[in-house]
Amino acid sequence: MTALRALVTPGSLVDGMTIALEDAELHHLRVRRSVVGADVVVLDGAGSSARGTLVDDGTRLGIAVGAVQAAPALPVTILAVGAGDKDRFLLLAERCTELGVSRLIPLETERSQAVGSRVREGVLERARRRAREACKQSGNPWATVVEDACMLPALALRPGAMRWLLADARGRRCPAMARDAAVAWIIGPEGGLTPAEIEYCRVDLAAELVSLGPATLRFDTAAIAAGVVTQDRRRIILEE
Amino acid sequence: MTALRALVTPGSLVDGMTIALEDAELHHLRVRRSVVGADVVVLDGAGSSARGTLVDDGTRLGIAVGAVQAAPALPVTILAVGAGDKDRFLLLAERCTELGVSRLIPLETERSQAVGSRVREGVLERARRRAREACKQSGNPWATVVEDACMLPALALRPGAMRWLLADARGRRCPAMARDAAVAWIIGPEGGLTPAEIEYCRVDLAAELVSLGPATLRFDTAAIAAGVVTQDRRRIILEE
Repeated sequence: MTALRALVTPGSLVDGMTIALEDAELHHLRVRRSVVGADVVVLDGAGSSARGTLVDDGTRLGIAVGAVQAAPALPVTILAVGAGDKDRFLLLAERCTELGVSRLIPLETERSQAVGSRVREGVLERARRRAREACKQSGNPWATVVEDACMLPALALRPGAMRWLLADARGRRCPAMARDAAVAWIIGPEGGLTPAEIEYCRVDLAAELVSLGPATLRFDTAAIAAGVVTQDRRRIILEE
Repeated sequence: MTALRALVTPGSLVDGMTIALEDAELHHLRVRRSVVGADVVVLDGAGSSARGTLVDDGTRLGIAVGAVQAAPALPVTILAVGAGDKDRFLLLAERCTELGVSRLIPLETERSQAVGSRVREGVLERARRRAREACKQSGNPWATVVEDACMLPALALRPGAMRWLLADARGRRCPAMARDAAVAWIIGPEGGLTPAEIEYCRVDLAAELVSLGPATLRFDTAAIAAGVVTQDRRRIILEE
């Protein structure tokens, strides 16, 4: 069984401190019938974690935290996704944390703008919460960072060297990747990117075309598949 | 853009025939503002497809079908999944078709039996519909077959040689696979398989332990990841 896990504000974990729990976490722990004195793993979703004990100071439940561990940073894996349906986007945010994706970017494209339920501001806040919640389920101490929506040209302005991969049925099988290489995927919306957008990715981002399988994938299936194969390729050097 | 696609009963496609459309398909085509005379790709979800034309015989819309194509059978990929939440299972059924999974089996395990919203009979019918619907979106002419729920020992009774893979964090990276090898995954429920169930898989099914990543994955994320890496491994011989 998975250990009892609680989520706290990023940066709030300090050796030996007692941390008050937010209402949502209190509810979660009560649902799991936790008792004072129980062992809890505390995660802040930003790489820090600690073992702790559930305590009651008379007014509120909290966690007395032991030694704080800082997890090594994950390699950079970015998914820029032409998101359509909002429920699928919320599920995707959660899965990104499970799959070790570092950043999820909702991409505004010509055809995703036509989607009525596309990702709006309120949805982004919910997606951030879902990505953080997934730390508890998955045990990954790093929650996927869900960025604000942006247009394709904004991707070219990001700092740092990046290997751009464009999910496209005409592409080749996903190439090998170095363990720590920064990799960023572009996943088109339902209906695909326009020819001009694809040209932009190839020329301005020097994106390689990579096929994630013979069928047409929904945006969220394609994004999950990109996360899965990236994680798989990063393991080659470690294990083979 | 994806072509206009319609779904018909398995086995109903015959060269040169006109096929009446079911209500759900009529609604789908009307939503897409189809007009009589439009070109339509017709799929039966069981490997057959044809180009056709939308016709109106005065009482009902139908499709006049051209030459029927039979797609080669997909290699056998089975996912036996300790399914919990029903909405996640329904989405999974759809994604299985997108990823070329041939069969999806809801697995009754000790810990999945405790899940309140676990997959019941009515849900299976809906999952079958979702898997077939996904043929239109994905263009895969083969819908994933969603089987009735079963217990672990029933898996050993299935006919035909099968390579069993058990998703387990202690396992190794997914091995290479021959293009046409029959592969079957066992994916545990939330909370995992019990030690006795794992032992059964290892001994009675000779299952290999395969890790799908360092984090604890939800049942549906793990199942999608298994579908993605299987499809990826089957492509090695074709492309490298």
